[in-house]
Amino acid sequence: MALRHIALFRWQDGVTPEQVAQVERLLGALPDAIPALDSYTFGPDLGISGGAYDFAVVAEVADEAGFVAYRDHPEHRSALAVIGPLLSDRAAIQYSIPGK
Amino acid sequence: MALRHIALFRWQDGVTPEQVAQVERLLGALPDAIPALDSYTFGPDLGISGGAYDFAVVAEVADEAGFVAYRDHPEHRSALAVIGPLLSDRAAIQYSIPGK
Repeated sequence: MALRHIALFRWQDGVTPEQVAQVERLLGALPDAIPALDSYTFGPDLGISGGAYDFAVVAEVADEAGFVAYRDHPEHRSALAVIGPLLSDRAAIQYSIPGK
Repeated sequence: MALRHIALFRWQDGVTPEQVAQVERLLGALPDAIPALDSYTFGPDLGISGGAYDFAVVAEVADEAGFVAYRDHPEHRSALAVIGPLLSDRAAIQYSIPGK
């Protein structure tokens, strides 16, 4: 089994496309910086369904130790310091997926 | 590009392990019933982080048409009819992922 971490964000009113682009730049640098990340995808809601969150981040790691390595990595913490003030809501989970 | 649909659930107080097992049986039947599903994983939160949702469902489909085929499929609708009354909260998104 592997582990998938999901975080969904709702942006505060007034968050700009430039701020979201900055978030995407910061997240985009993480796969090269954090070896524990086996897969890392993120992006905005596609606008297909009403009531959706605004932005998704999905990380796949081998196990709980890999998740903790990601969660506590300095570059991830730096990205979170930028993201946190932009959020009005966040939903998250870690669940098991079949190993690769 | 492909599309990933994420739904996170919080169960109401009093939802039993047997009810969650029934949900898992219903969801487990969907990949064989819905050809649009390229990947389908689901399961309970692993309890690693505080504040997490209780249960995740992640579907990968080729495009918006595939998502609609999944969303509106009768077996999926039947599963949702069981799941809906168990929920206290739900978070969802559809976002683009690199195609396979």
